[in-house]
Amino acid sequence: MKFALFNDFQLGLIENDTVYDIGHAIGAFARKSDCPMVDFIRQFASKTDEWAALKENALRFSLSEVRLRQPLARPGKIVAAPVNYVSHQQEMKEELTARNLGFFLKAQTSIIGPGDTVMLPYADRRIDHELELAFVIGKTAKNVSREEALDYVFGYTGLIDVTLRPDEVHIEERCLRKSFDTFTPIGPWIVTKDEIPNPDDINMVLKVNCEVRQKVNTRDLICNVAELISIYSKIMTLEPGDLIATGTPEGVGPIKKGDAIELEIEGIGQFEVKVDMA
Amino acid sequence: MKFALFNDFQLGLIENDTVYDIGHAIGAFARKSDCPMVDFIRQFASKTDEWAALKENALRFSLSEVRLRQPLARPGKIVAAPVNYVSHQQEMKEELTARNLGFFLKAQTSIIGPGDTVMLPYADRRIDHELELAFVIGKTAKNVSREEALDYVFGYTGLIDVTLRPDEVHIEERCLRKSFDTFTPIGPWIVTKDEIPNPDDINMVLKVNCEVRQKVNTRDLICNVAELISIYSKIMTLEPGDLIATGTPEGVGPIKKGDAIELEIEGIGQFEVKVDMA
Repeated sequence: MKFALFNDFQLGLIENDTVYDIGHAIGAFARKSDCPMVDFIRQFASKTDEWAALKENALRFSLSEVRLRQPLARPGKIVAAPVNYVSHQQEMKEELTARNLGFFLKAQTSIIGPGDTVMLPYADRRIDHELELAFVIGKTAKNVSREEALDYVFGYTGLIDVTLRPDEVHIEERCLRKSFDTFTPIGPWIVTKDEIPNPDDINMVLKVNCEVRQKVNTRDLICNVAELISIYSKIMTLEPGDLIATGTPEGVGPIKKGDAIELEIEGIGQFEVKVDMA
Repeated sequence: MKFALFNDFQLGLIENDTVYDIGHAIGAFARKSDCPMVDFIRQFASKTDEWAALKENALRFSLSEVRLRQPLARPGKIVAAPVNYVSHQQEMKEELTARNLGFFLKAQTSIIGPGDTVMLPYADRRIDHELELAFVIGKTAKNVSREEALDYVFGYTGLIDVTLRPDEVHIEERCLRKSFDTFTPIGPWIVTKDEIPNPDDINMVLKVNCEVRQKVNTRDLICNVAELISIYSKIMTLEPGDLIATGTPEGVGPIKKGDAIELEIEGIGQFEVKVDMA
């Protein structure tokens, strides 16, 4: 199943070209919330028998007549793997030492959605696109083994990890360089894990102005989805709605005012964002 | 005014030794929420005329009969200044270069409250206490000037930034080393800004097993509260309930199983946490 936030951050179930306004249909989700999707994910397991009725009672829209938003507005946290493809590691001239292990965090206020605009804060610094598969936690995970890890996934989405590069003068913390407002485009929706039986074999491509810049299959990840959940859940509790970005492959490159960035992930979908100066 | 979360994360107004259960009294806050305090802060400005009535209708408890919890359960983000006292900068042998500027983020899942226990994940790594004044954002802040910055503060609280030190083998990202579960004790409550007219002149002390380890006045901050808000709000939107830690002075040192850490901040209050092995 595909779940989206649309228009005024209403919760939608997407089937083919139809958007079912299930947030409206489910009283529990009708109330104003920071993030209807996080509320929904928490209750998802208990709702699986109710889809037919929910759909029947839901307002329907054509996909082409709604505005898709970021499918998570305010996840509890955004955790991201810093260097998780050998090809990007070589490109960044980083050795896979202890320095590269672990994660950084991104501010949730950096999230934007399909059709939105990445706002560049500086004209004189290099700011890059980074294509990433992201996944969303479905239930509370702590000290989870690699074997059980995928049970804790709710679903998958696309993520562009926009990144201010350090230079000879500026060497800010990674989480600062990635937390500017608009630096985390995600979308176009969340695809539940049952539709992605093997997250270790997904083709992904990122284009800037229709030109391919990054192209990879997730089989080249150094730590795959299951391993990331296992490693991170030993450090901290992962909660429903937490968003985890798996890292980017080679091909990262600068973006500039006027660019259009398109991400497409096999089995998930595609979306585009624009680039402008803040 | 002093606002706390107590017992089952109910919202309380503290006056002298009395806790008024105002969450119970205000229908809007009675519903189950991730963090009643964040909801409350968003609506605080519109409630200022209602305190007398709210108190009158509230259940009352003696402070000694309630369990104080972390006054923020799930802030939108925790932003922290990495090296913000000259004394700590010297102790860490860091130069105040661009590397030191900016912030790191901590996972919200690392928060614990008064009386809780810091759980050490490793027996063979050094893990330190770091005493910090923290403040809570009261209204949405973006591109705020230093002069206007304090208008955006809701209030102040105490924070211990527990930190896994890098060593010769392990040099993880700062935000990983500070995001383990239980690594952010805060409390004992939030004191609104009207009671802290000058955040640049506050005495703070941290003791381990009754021995003073860190003692400082916030006048020694390199970037003060107003400057931090101005700097950070140029990078990202600060939202009601966001928690910002101002940095630690000299005297950071290792903690071990069995220790008791006590923090006391002038005009705010004191609390203690214990230390154990995870």
